[in-house]
Amino acid sequence: MAAKTEENWSNPLRDPRDKRLPRIAGPCSLVIFGVTGDLARKKLMPAVYDLANRGLLPPSFALVGFARRDWDDEDFGKVVHDAVQAHARTPFREDVWERLSEGFRFVQGSFDDDAAFDRLRDTLATLDAERGTDGNHAFYLSVPPKAFPVVCEQLRRSGLATAQGDQWRRVVIEKPFGHDLESARELNQVVNSVFPEQSVFRIDHYLGKETVQNILALRFANQLFDPVWSSHYVDHVQITMAEDIGLGGRAGYYDGIGAARDVIQNHLLQLLALVAMEEPVSFEPRELQAEKIKVLSATKNILPLTEHTARGQYGAGWQGSEQVVGLKEEEGFDTDSNTETYAAIALEVDSRRWAGVPFYLRTGKRLGRRVTEIALVFKRAPHLPFDKTMTEELSQNALVIRVQPDEGITLRFGSKVPGSSMEVRDVNMDFSYGQAFTESSPEAYERLILDVLLGEPSLFPVNAEVELSWEILDPVLDAWAENGSPDTYEAGTWGPDSADTMMERAGRQWRRP
Amino acid sequence: MAAKTEENWSNPLRDPRDKRLPRIAGPCSLVIFGVTGDLARKKLMPAVYDLANRGLLPPSFALVGFARRDWDDEDFGKVVHDAVQAHARTPFREDVWERLSEGFRFVQGSFDDDAAFDRLRDTLATLDAERGTDGNHAFYLSVPPKAFPVVCEQLRRSGLATAQGDQWRRVVIEKPFGHDLESARELNQVVNSVFPEQSVFRIDHYLGKETVQNILALRFANQLFDPVWSSHYVDHVQITMAEDIGLGGRAGYYDGIGAARDVIQNHLLQLLALVAMEEPVSFEPRELQAEKIKVLSATKNILPLTEHTARGQYGAGWQGSEQVVGLKEEEGFDTDSNTETYAAIALEVDSRRWAGVPFYLRTGKRLGRRVTEIALVFKRAPHLPFDKTMTEELSQNALVIRVQPDEGITLRFGSKVPGSSMEVRDVNMDFSYGQAFTESSPEAYERLILDVLLGEPSLFPVNAEVELSWEILDPVLDAWAENGSPDTYEAGTWGPDSADTMMERAGRQWRRP
Repeated sequence: MAAKTEENWSNPLRDPRDKRLPRIAGPCSLVIFGVTGDLARKKLMPAVYDLANRGLLPPSFALVGFARRDWDDEDFGKVVHDAVQAHARTPFREDVWERLSEGFRFVQGSFDDDAAFDRLRDTLATLDAERGTDGNHAFYLSVPPKAFPVVCEQLRRSGLATAQGDQWRRVVIEKPFGHDLESARELNQVVNSVFPEQSVFRIDHYLGKETVQNILALRFANQLFDPVWSSHYVDHVQITMAEDIGLGGRAGYYDGIGAARDVIQNHLLQLLALVAMEEPVSFEPRELQAEKIKVLSATKNILPLTEHTARGQYGAGWQGSEQVVGLKEEEGFDTDSNTETYAAIALEVDSRRWAGVPFYLRTGKRLGRRVTEIALVFKRAPHLPFDKTMTEELSQNALVIRVQPDEGITLRFGSKVPGSSMEVRDVNMDFSYGQAFTESSPEAYERLILDVLLGEPSLFPVNAEVELSWEILDPVLDAWAENGSPDTYEAGTWGPDSADTMMERAGRQWRRP
Repeated sequence: MAAKTEENWSNPLRDPRDKRLPRIAGPCSLVIFGVTGDLARKKLMPAVYDLANRGLLPPSFALVGFARRDWDDEDFGKVVHDAVQAHARTPFREDVWERLSEGFRFVQGSFDDDAAFDRLRDTLATLDAERGTDGNHAFYLSVPPKAFPVVCEQLRRSGLATAQGDQWRRVVIEKPFGHDLESARELNQVVNSVFPEQSVFRIDHYLGKETVQNILALRFANQLFDPVWSSHYVDHVQITMAEDIGLGGRAGYYDGIGAARDVIQNHLLQLLALVAMEEPVSFEPRELQAEKIKVLSATKNILPLTEHTARGQYGAGWQGSEQVVGLKEEEGFDTDSNTETYAAIALEVDSRRWAGVPFYLRTGKRLGRRVTEIALVFKRAPHLPFDKTMTEELSQNALVIRVQPDEGITLRFGSKVPGSSMEVRDVNMDFSYGQAFTESSPEAYERLILDVLLGEPSLFPVNAEVELSWEILDPVLDAWAENGSPDTYEAGTWGPDSADTMMERAGRQWRRP
């Protein structure tokens, strides 16, 4: 694998004008707050190493951890080392590791400790001078949202938020971006009071996935798909993110958030935006954002909400061959909680292209299978010149973008069954990423961290998108808060009966992907 | 395999109203003239056995061979037995064979021998009485076209061409259906003077292929394909039948016929008709024929013919690892002959749907690979919101119907290359018959012989289609006759340079399938 890496630390054959090659980040440091957390260990540290291994980080790069833990630089280095060994995508290379780890620093402290942030400032200043990070710093807030205000304020107070001259300062925040529209606005206000909007990078890691970015390539690089990409031919769209796992240790965090806030507000509405948006003038961030904002502005709930949404909490059941407990039995979960682990909503996009086409979004834990997919389900052909018995096993055509796992695209269509009669049956046509490309796909976090260091904001939702998403979701959350409690569904099934009823009312049914 | 057969000689569970099950032929006999030939041995006899094995022939079925060879019924039975053992698709079952072979008869004689045809009449009459074939007889003329008149006349003279009451008489003829429009008209006149048009079954075995019949299912059972099936989105269509073999022992037969008459006049123009025709009212034979006739009537050569056709004769070369001789060195081939082994023509279909879309038809022997396919090559997207360097490896979308071998459908489209940039490259999406269906596909001849016995003419071109095809081809053949000789191409390549030039003039290129 190492030999196949197309870029290395110093490749004299690399042509900087070839846009097909990823750009190399300039001198900078990446500061991670909450560096002892799961995300840092499983995703961020490995992604930093993988970027270095691919030759996409500069020699003048530093990784700085900030946490309460009583570590020194060396302890921190060991933690990163273990994380890389366990979770990196690319093979471990000693020379890459040595050069990278020379830029590791650890700053011990809590968020309310001014002195700690002063030490952080001094550490970064030293790195600027000694390692040449040049005053460019990205602050990754891998911390609960309630800590955002204090960290931002400390960065302001210590002078770290403000760049001089050509230097840059950027802040990276993770979802949830608030709890509803009001709290999102407050959060954005806090962040924007310290960092201007163009310096704020909101991570929705789904947008870093190859299959998600390919939605744009599929739609806008081809002649074949656009003609049927509208209400003339599409009956409805189903966007699904199903998990097979339960809450496990995250029950305390999850309580009060729920499936809609955790997944629909960010991942699924972003997928909807990419599927439904018009062609952008170019893939410049401004142009892309404008189109996503436009389509989210046109997106409305189908009313009444009681009939066009569904929610549930998983009960005990079987996940494959494993017997699992219900939500109420999960450790740390309040048994009176109405927090849903399954959520389904129906939306419409009020535009010439999409008017009248429902977009069904659903997500849940402890469902039948782990899968994320976008399915465009087409109308039936207006006329079938076949004998009726010949098309009994023919359903509607569908184009399915398989986001994960088993990344690819499936086209379902009718084909003649071999034999003397003109019987037609559904068959699948398949495109698989894994088989089509020898290039292995970078992890979403590799792509997104590199983009932060490059100041390339295309894949990060802006404030307006976050707020529009809450405007769509808030009425649903309010309606749910006012109307009883979630239904229960058996673990390992595809959600509560009410979700099926919601579709049956419209004469449709959920896919069983 | 035998156990998987869905129908057997007497299946009490078979519901005769279920149109998905093939119908069983009624009592009848099949008489094969030219029963000692290759076609009879490799295709017809095995197909008859396979039909019996599938339970689609009635107990009152007889197979009668007619030839000059000095055989008795038993000799004939042995020949059929060997042919079935060597070439049948389904496994050999002793019980099926025994029941089938009881109905074998052989009549010795030449076509100008009145007495032989009288013996044939008596043989059939005896079968009617003893085996219950009920006066229903199909005459399969597996003989050179020049023998059609005498055989037809003998059938008339002996009274075999005329049916009484509910009985039927049918005649099956194989291509070539004439040599040009004039000879085709003469031939049709001879045949129709003895058998009315509805009793004439012209075999174009391509129409019996599953992949060819699936063109209609693909187009008319789905919502997805029709919207792009027109000049708005299709740039051009390429219909290719490439053979890797040379003339071998058939040089004598082939001389004076050539690739255009042998393949384009029938197979390729029929494929064009199925791809380009409008939706029929139903799949009733009359409705299907009406649409095919309509589209062939609208099909014109692109002029001037010298620029929009190409022809060639293969020279020596390499077919894979085998060194092969050129056409002029083939035994039995006249070295002065201008008969082409490669032919390419460009057509237009003058209709609202297709105006301006060239249909390129080509066929040849000793080409790079044995393959038959229909490729709809789409226009480029009207605008690509990508950086130019990002789409260098993106060509035109294509939908390819793979007729043989490796039956299936391929969709070529652009997909994002994994990595940080929005680079787009062609990828393929694939549907494979073999993988999609557990049902194995009947051989074309099984399907077509059964249809003859059932009197189901959907898959047989009628007189009008044959004549329209010659009207399209005649001007090309005339132009070639007046303008020099065919170019030479190296065996194992994809035809003469002039074929490439013909496409380059239009800014296009042939596929290398």
